[in-house]
Amino acid sequence: MKVELNKPILDLNNRLAHENRERMRAQSIYMLDLLASPGAGKTSLILATIAALKTSYRIAVIEGDIASDVDAVKIREAGIPAVQINTGGACHLEAAMIARALEALDLAALDLIIIENVGNLVCPTDFDLGEDAKAMILSVPEGHDKPLKYPGVFQVARAVVLNKRDTLPYFDFDETAFAQSLAELNPHAVLFPLSATEHTGLEAWTQWLASQIEEKKLCS
Amino acid sequence: MKVELNKPILDLNNRLAHENRERMRAQSIYMLDLLASPGAGKTSLILATIAALKTSYRIAVIEGDIASDVDAVKIREAGIPAVQINTGGACHLEAAMIARALEALDLAALDLIIIENVGNLVCPTDFDLGEDAKAMILSVPEGHDKPLKYPGVFQVARAVVLNKRDTLPYFDFDETAFAQSLAELNPHAVLFPLSATEHTGLEAWTQWLASQIEEKKLCS
Repeated sequence: MKVELNKPILDLNNRLAHENRERMRAQSIYMLDLLASPGAGKTSLILATIAALKTSYRIAVIEGDIASDVDAVKIREAGIPAVQINTGGACHLEAAMIARALEALDLAALDLIIIENVGNLVCPTDFDLGEDAKAMILSVPEGHDKPLKYPGVFQVARAVVLNKRDTLPYFDFDETAFAQSLAELNPHAVLFPLSATEHTGLEAWTQWLASQIEEKKLCS
Repeated sequence: MKVELNKPILDLNNRLAHENRERMRAQSIYMLDLLASPGAGKTSLILATIAALKTSYRIAVIEGDIASDVDAVKIREAGIPAVQINTGGACHLEAAMIARALEALDLAALDLIIIENVGNLVCPTDFDLGEDAKAMILSVPEGHDKPLKYPGVFQVARAVVLNKRDTLPYFDFDETAFAQSLAELNPHAVLFPLSATEHTGLEAWTQWLASQIEEKKLCS
């Protein structure tokens, strides 16, 4: 019954996501949808990514939160335009929210839009926002067994960041077991072990993102 | 529009939750619904709670997961009956799932049922399962700003566990700011700072839970 009730909403969402995607194509903007649990380090990774790429690319951030604008404030302090979406309770962003957020941005002056989705490993998985790719973060304190428990998000992610790698000595996290579970669920995902706050291992991630932006420019 | 579509589902859920609650009352069983993000330490806290209370109370666990039964296996290894619910994608448990899980348990032989909800700070908040109380865990690595971002779950929780306190030296977590935000959102919540895996600070939590079980026995 739930599936039937949700179907019209998802159909509408897919139509609006398609419109967002066409708009990004017309402007040659690469749009990344970033998913993770609360506290996995989405804002920290975005801030580290901005620091690494802002001299080469023009970046904006769309911040999705149930409530508050603390993350958008941090992004603006880094000198980057940020649009805050408060879902008021909904556990994911939808394409219609992104369409409205895009109205608040000067698209002609952008190369990259990073969407920080609501902190949640489940709900955002099914919603196409019109992004070029979904990426996700798992952080070391969450444990290496998470692909078994939340397979959907690991399957839709084109890139998986293993964050807070500096805390490995303090947690019982098996990196090999994690990489194996991920490879079984999603053999095409690229894995980036790093620490966003310690600024270690970031180069591979930012180089991957830069290559995606370049490819989009070439092909659109 | 979404609210209207969801209303019949929530009405049905509330009716089934009421039936679960009546059943627990008839058997004098205390039922706790435990909420947290993925990896915050729900299973670790449940295992530590079992170790502390199993000589005094007869305990069972209902495990909610999108997929897998790794947690139920751990609980059974601790000598406690565990029923696994796989939601197959849904980000929360519903009262109907609990009603089915109760069928698999010998209720006459139980004092306490702990429900480990799906790892999620958003979706499980609105769903009454027939529990006596919802409790939630925030873990230190998630950050002290979470009450601002996910107010709903902090508002419905009667008890809030701050877990992984042993990792405070490695994270920028302000305990005072956290306690203040919590007190503003939910002045009646009881806060238990502890480390489930290091077995520190557990006594206050298990004593609180024991007092809840005793009160239920007296009043039903």
